[in-house]
Parts: sequence; C-alpha cells; structure tokens
Amino acid sequence: MLNLSRRTLVGSAAASIAIPIAAATATRATSALAGKQAAGWYRYKVGTFEITVVTDGIARFRFADDHVTNKSRDEVNAALSGMFMEKDMMTPPYNPIVVNTGSKLVVIDTGTSEANYIQSKGMGGQLLANLAAAGIDAKAIDAVIISHYHGDHVNGLLRADNTLAFPNAEIFVPANEHKFWMDDGEMSRASKGRMEDLFKNNRRVFSGEVVKRLHTYEWGKEIVPGILATGTPGHTPGHTSFVVVSGSDKIFVQSDVTHVPFLFVRNPTWHAFYDQDGAQAEATRRKVYDMLVADQMLVQGFHYPFPGLAHVEKAGMGYRELPVPWNPTI
Amino acid sequence: MLNLSRRTLVGSAAASIAIPIAAATATRATSALAGKQAAGWYRYKVGTFEITVVTDGIARFRFADDHVTNKSRDEVNAALSGMFMEKDMMTPPYNPIVVNTGSKLVVIDTGTSEANYIQSKGMGGQLLANLAAAGIDAKAIDAVIISHYHGDHVNGLLRADNTLAFPNAEIFVPANEHKFWMDDGEMSRASKGRMEDLFKNNRRVFSGEVVKRLHTYEWGKEIVPGILATGTPGHTPGHTSFVVVSGSDKIFVQSDVTHVPFLFVRNPTWHAFYDQDGAQAEATRRKVYDMLVADQMLVQGFHYPFPGLAHVEKAGMGYRELPVPWNPTI
Repeated sequence: MLNLSRRTLVGSAAASIAIPIAAATATRATSALAGKQAAGWYRYKVGTFEITVVTDGIARFRFADDHVTNKSRDEVNAALSGMFMEKDMMTPPYNPIVVNTGSKLVVIDTGTSEANYIQSKGMGGQLLANLAAAGIDAKAIDAVIISHYHGDHVNGLLRADNTLAFPNAEIFVPANEHKFWMDDGEMSRASKGRMEDLFKNNRRVFSGEVVKRLHTYEWGKEIVPGILATGTPGHTPGHTSFVVVSGSDKIFVQSDVTHVPFLFVRNPTWHAFYDQDGAQAEATRRKVYDMLVADQMLVQGFHYPFPGLAHVEKAGMGYRELPVPWNPTI
Repeated sequence: MLNLSRRTLVGSAAASIAIPIAAATATRATSALAGKQAAGWYRYKVGTFEITVVTDGIARFRFADDHVTNKSRDEVNAALSGMFMEKDMMTPPYNPIVVNTGSKLVVIDTGTSEANYIQSKGMGGQLLANLAAAGIDAKAIDAVIISHYHGDHVNGLLRADNTLAFPNAEIFVPANEHKFWMDDGEMSRASKGRMEDLFKNNRRVFSGEVVKRLHTYEWGKEIVPGILATGTPGHTPGHTSFVVVSGSDKIFVQSDVTHVPFLFVRNPTWHAFYDQDGAQAEATRRKVYDMLVADQMLVQGFHYPFPGLAHVEKAGMGYRELPVPWNPTI
C-alpha cells in the first residue's frame, strides 16, 4: 500500500534491488542524456485552414516591483505560488502562429528575433528554427501580420544580419498603431526609458526593406480572406486581435489582450506594466473574455503556455483558461 | 473597437480587402496543407535524470452507459460539456515515459501496441514512432516497467509481428499483479466479456519471449535505482505507481490512479468501469491526491493530456490538475 514517508523512501533506497538487471548491465554501463527538447510546434485545423503554433520560446527574468502596476510584489508572488511557480521570476512564453488558408501562408506576429536566439542561447527567438522543424519554409510565407509594436511581436521581422526573416512576404500592420509609433510628436512626448526605447526600436525595425513591404490594415476589415482584424486597444493604442474564420469554425487570436494567463486571465483587473493604458486594456480584456465565455469561443494566446489554444470559463472575479488537450493527430 | 456580431463578421467578410497581396499572389496560387502533427514527445529533468514523455496517441470512442459506474451518462456529459468536450465521446490519451537515469534507460508502460497503430490508422499505438522521433532507439532500452495488466499498458511489449518491442530490455512486473492474472482459479471465476478478455489478453502477452525476460517486483522497493514501486491498488489488484527520485527532486508517476483528469481528478468519487474494485480505487485516489496536494508533488499522468506533467490543488469536492507550462528548452 501507498506509504511515502521520508523514512520509507530512504529505507527503500537503501534496500538492495530485488532483481538485478543482469543483461542490461552487461550491455551498457551508462546511458547518455539527450539534453534536447522537442521542436516547439503544434498543428490544428480551423475549418479547412491549418494553424501551426510555432513557439518562439520563453524568457526568464526577475520581475520589477511595478511589473503589475496596481498590485504589490507579494500579491504577484502569491499568484505565482498558487500555480507552483518560482517566486520573483517571470517566464513568459511567446507563441506566433502560421495560418495556412489553402491559398495563403500567413505568419501572425514574429517573436523576439534571431538576434535574441543568439543572445538568449536558444531560450527565446526560436521561431525560425521551429518553423524549419515544422517543415515550413520562411521563403514560402506570403504575408506577415503584426498585432502591435512591441519587440516580442515585431523584432522577428528581421534576422540577426538585418535581412528580412520572411523575404517574400508582404507585411501588414495596424494603421493606427503604425501612425502612433511613427509620429514625431508622440515620440517627443515619450517618457525616458521603456517608452522612448520602444519608439527607437520601432523606428529601427520599420525602416529599409520592411517599409518597402509594408501595408496598413484597418480594424473591422479582413486582412487576408479569413483573417479579420479586430481592435482591442489599451495594451497599445493600435493593439489588434484577429478572428480566423473558415466555414463555421473560428478562433480568436488574442495577441496581448492578456499577458500570461495565470496572472491576467485569472485577475483581469491587474494591470501589466506592458499595458500602455491600463484602464483601457482592462476594459478591453473584460469585453473580450466575456465574449469568449458567452460564445464558447476558442482563444489562441500569444503569452499562454505553448501551444496556447484554450477555452475560457468564468472563475471567481475573473476567468480561467482550459487548455485544449494535445491532439497527437490532426 | 471590438465588435464581433454575426453582422459585422459577414459584413467585413463581404467588404473588399483593403490592400491586395499583389506580390504574394503573383508567387503562388495555393498553399499545400501539411496535414501532419508534431511528433509527440516532451522532455524534462528530475534531478540528474531525464524524463521523456513519449505519447502513444489517443483513442476515440462512444462511451458505454456504465462508463462511470456510479454516474449517469447525463452527468458524464455535463462534465465533458464543462470542459468544452464532445458529448458521448471519450478520447483518452496514453502517455508512457522513458526515464534515463544516466545508467539505465527505462520505459514505464508500453501503450496500446504497434498492432493498434495499424488498426487505428495512427491515432493510437504511436509509442515506437514517437520514440524514434525523440532519438531513442528501442534496442537501447534496458528495462521496461509495467504498472498493471491492462492492454493500453502491456500490449506495447510486442510488435505487430509478435516480436519484442524492446528486444534488449528486462521486463519488470508487479508480483501480485502477475500472480492474479496468471491464476487459473481467478480466471475461472472471471465474468464473461471484459474480465475474461483481460485474462486472455494477459496470457497472450505474457508468454514466449516476454516471459523469458520477466522479473517480478515488490511494493515499497526500488525496481531500478531511483524508481520506487508504490502500491496503489483498486484499479487492479496489483496496480502500481512509481516515485522517480534523483537528488532532492521527485515526481509521482501515477499510472491509472485516475483515468482522464477532467472526469476523475475533479470527481474522485466517480468510479470508472476500468476500476476493478471501485471503492478501493477511490480510497487509493484520495490517499494519493491528498499526498500530492500536501507535498506539492508533481504528478505524471498516463491518461492526462500530453505531456501529462502537473501539480495538483484541491478544488470543490475533488482536485484540479495544473499542467506545468511547456518548457521549450530543457
């Protein structure tokens, strides 16, 4: 019967092994560790469309005291602890997707970039490596759609040598988002530090070859057939989510309506420091999640744990995501 | 702003696309679908040990009225519906693991078999294919440990041609489990149908080459260094779980202490028809899950959605599993 006291564990560890593995021992003395993770991609269908979630990996950092601007470090740590996660550390995942509509191969958001792959020693910036593992040629991508102008969504437009990561793709960006970040007046009013850095980074990325491929899109319109742009502002002024529709099937690609779900889906009133307008982001979050619950709609979350496809239910004062079980076939 | 009424969706779909993808359209008219899922394996560390979860895939079937022997079909359907799962259908996953202790390469449970891979057209019986994808040679396996004598755990000992799936492995089975299923008296008392079929299947599998490799193990003892057998009876008389220990790290490999978590972790008082002794299985389930909660211990679930590693918390009258976020590195 079950008995797992420390004494039993120690006792049994000390006990001699009932039956030695004679044959196996004779064959090999050691078993080399692999040290390699499975390639991070996962595929599912939406109607006749094929969605491939291609993870860009994760980051790992000690979070700042104002990581959640309206909650203390202790409150954030309590939430992490409730999820059996390490105190004081944030490990956000990044999950771009590829939509194959049958006529177009479309990347939505580009991850943290190949430069970050090198810098992070492979922890982040995995998009191009995982794309290749999934059998998708970056040269075959027809369109890249950008949800908003934060580095983990736009930096992957460029390779480490500053050439285009998707050399044959047109690049679609939210009209109002582009206008905001390219506006010299807005930039002149940006606070030092993060906001100013964002302006600088966006002007670095959106230059040269990227600009030659650039098209702006409007909220409420289709960007390519079957991918509808829907305004979900607050996180940034032009922050956009997407509804991918094929036949009677659809999913909601939320971009950053919430950051990591274990903090911000459970606690929609919490304001991530990433949210440029916290109050507007919260209102958007409520609106989106109430809709996801009412319509029983699937959500694909950029910062959800890979592969990031879930249903949503109400839970307490917020919501809970219910990951769709991994389907080992398609 | 967000507006996803049917009228808006139809309206926007009907609207002309703001910016045609001229370049992309010129390049290719169609984009061939891949139709292929990622190989189902996932790796993590326990101390210095390397665990590779290698999924055997899933099954999919209309469940019988007595699938949960003490609950009605309507109650089961209500639970499925709460998880956004299809009514009347069961899709259990099967997740064997490989433990690399640094000196031994050990498979725990063997899945539904290569024969089932052929019969199910690749939905189940994926273990050998996914092992190969994970870079693990079946010939390099030193030991196979069996938790209990149900087909989805033992059938994978044999290939479709009845040769050994792990030709160089010793096979370790629970002493009391083996005794029960090989006892002619017990077999003579078995009810027609499922129980009789189980006896017959076990006598088919545990014959010939398998028997030549067979070793029995006892509860409370280590089977190989770092893998402790712990009795968790009820599901079958000799049903066994495992504690994998390396240094100060450990996980609990629960085998079938619960079947699919969305039914039996949430509702520990529900008796799966798979449970040979429902009351004993329930008592075991409570004991194990109370321990997992008290010790904040990780559980690896054979019938949890892939990859099946989770923490457990109390929830309502039962428990809830909190899947460990996918780590794209190791």
